[in-house]
Amino acid sequence: MYRKEIKVLDCTIRDGGLVNDHQFDLDFTRDVYKSLCEAGVDYIELGYKNSRELFDSSKFGPWKFCDDDDLWRVIDGVETDSKVSVMADVGRVDMDNIKDAKDSPFDLVRVATYAKDVDKAIEMLNQFDAQGFETCINVMAVSRDQGPELDEALEQINQECKAQAVYIVDSFGALYQEPIARLTKLFKEKCPNKEVGIHAHNNQQLGFSNTIEAIINGANFLDATVYGMGRAAGNCPMELLIGFLKNPKYDLRPILDLIANRFIQLREEYEWGYVIPFAIAGIMNDHPRDAMALRKSDSPDNFRQFYEKLSTTAG
Amino acid sequence: MYRKEIKVLDCTIRDGGLVNDHQFDLDFTRDVYKSLCEAGVDYIELGYKNSRELFDSSKFGPWKFCDDDDLWRVIDGVETDSKVSVMADVGRVDMDNIKDAKDSPFDLVRVATYAKDVDKAIEMLNQFDAQGFETCINVMAVSRDQGPELDEALEQINQECKAQAVYIVDSFGALYQEPIARLTKLFKEKCPNKEVGIHAHNNQQLGFSNTIEAIINGANFLDATVYGMGRAAGNCPMELLIGFLKNPKYDLRPILDLIANRFIQLREEYEWGYVIPFAIAGIMNDHPRDAMALRKSDSPDNFRQFYEKLSTTAG
Repeated sequence: MYRKEIKVLDCTIRDGGLVNDHQFDLDFTRDVYKSLCEAGVDYIELGYKNSRELFDSSKFGPWKFCDDDDLWRVIDGVETDSKVSVMADVGRVDMDNIKDAKDSPFDLVRVATYAKDVDKAIEMLNQFDAQGFETCINVMAVSRDQGPELDEALEQINQECKAQAVYIVDSFGALYQEPIARLTKLFKEKCPNKEVGIHAHNNQQLGFSNTIEAIINGANFLDATVYGMGRAAGNCPMELLIGFLKNPKYDLRPILDLIANRFIQLREEYEWGYVIPFAIAGIMNDHPRDAMALRKSDSPDNFRQFYEKLSTTAG
Repeated sequence: MYRKEIKVLDCTIRDGGLVNDHQFDLDFTRDVYKSLCEAGVDYIELGYKNSRELFDSSKFGPWKFCDDDDLWRVIDGVETDSKVSVMADVGRVDMDNIKDAKDSPFDLVRVATYAKDVDKAIEMLNQFDAQGFETCINVMAVSRDQGPELDEALEQINQECKAQAVYIVDSFGALYQEPIARLTKLFKEKCPNKEVGIHAHNNQQLGFSNTIEAIINGANFLDATVYGMGRAAGNCPMELLIGFLKNPKYDLRPILDLIANRFIQLREEYEWGYVIPFAIAGIMNDHPRDAMALRKSDSPDNFRQFYEKLSTTAG
């Protein structure tokens, strides 16, 4: 698959940080950043731009906050065309502390929102746009919030929002390829002024194939993470996506080294990926929080009871 | 997805046995068999029907040979509608020792063949048919052996072969959903008298999605294994497939118990599933044997070198 409009965005530190409270040290984070630059990945997302007023700084690592100084330390001295991204949640950013893009260590801001909260998301995103940043808007939980509410949110995004791309976010890893195809077409139809992006979760081992399905149907902004690291089941694995895209600008080898040198060991310390309760949550179109709680409980392998509980509550 | 023609075939003991030289003990094998019966799986494949003349019985477990007596012990006393399958390789079966179906512990025989060997496969398969068995023919390595050779093999299967179903076997886990869709249509067009089956390998986490893709395009015989156990990257996970099929005759819960009680532990002892060299082999459309050798070597995580070696030999 070669299409010059395609952009690959790595969100290992940002989404993977949800596994370890963003406690990646600077050396690790720089290694990830440099390897992804070498691999030719277009955007590298280094965390959330959260206000330190809202979270306990002693409990979370630096990438929960993405202070400019911490970001400068990551990118310092690396010659690259890859751009840096941060994610912004509505109501959690201290907008007074945001410098203009030309004075900031990041290039792209992605605003994550539910369909129902799209007004506030657009307002914040347009402020970032006015300060010179590239912007994307990520519509979460599309496996649940479909129908007229989603249609209207997309129409509003197309008309009012400065974002260059609008993302389909399968937060629960619940979607198969047919709904992904349908949603990609819907997003393109409702937002003809935007690129469409895909952020897939891997609960049912469909993260990669759903990303391919979105590409087939016209999505050009593609999220992935190294070794699939991300909350719960994680995401589309970057190494598979790069192996699939035939664009010679990408190089798989630095990512293979990064996995061998860093992520095999990290996976021993933290759990993500194909784990049965995460798969069950995906099958049941459920938020992963209950599955994550089960895995931290005294009976992490009580699959049947967990399945029966979700079957009941879903009904 | 509900379609009454769909048949699910579990090949955990047969394909999973390629991971541990078929050294499952009787208690384990009976537990797998009984749980799959309870889950309502249509066919349960318990191994290869190899002649003991050809392999060292001290090195392989019973399911490399599937002696009738061993099979009778597995199914003894279990009331079920599920049927038993064995796999037969051309030239490896002692046909003189095959009793008629009515006196045998298995119902279905699947003959695996490369496109180029289809003559011999058809001849053997038709003998099993004449003895009263159900039969399927599995065309291996279709990611490599395409074009006129495959077309002719399929035409011959349609005309001469008694098999009720002809399987697409993605032996290298190399195919994406577009080639799977194309192949499913090709198999159906060339073999209008047969059902089409899908046996996917999971090198690129595409085993489940490729199975869905085949279903969408008309495949009705679906292979899967418990917790995805199978050679190298393994297969489409049964638990995901059952979760996808909405047919009320299937019950996910006995499979969840089986994973919790047996397969989580087994995965600690034997390696299968998403392992980077297996993924690389899939990306490069290569037989998994080199990747399996790497994993047993002194440098199992030397991903870059392995990738560069395959890149060179592929060129």
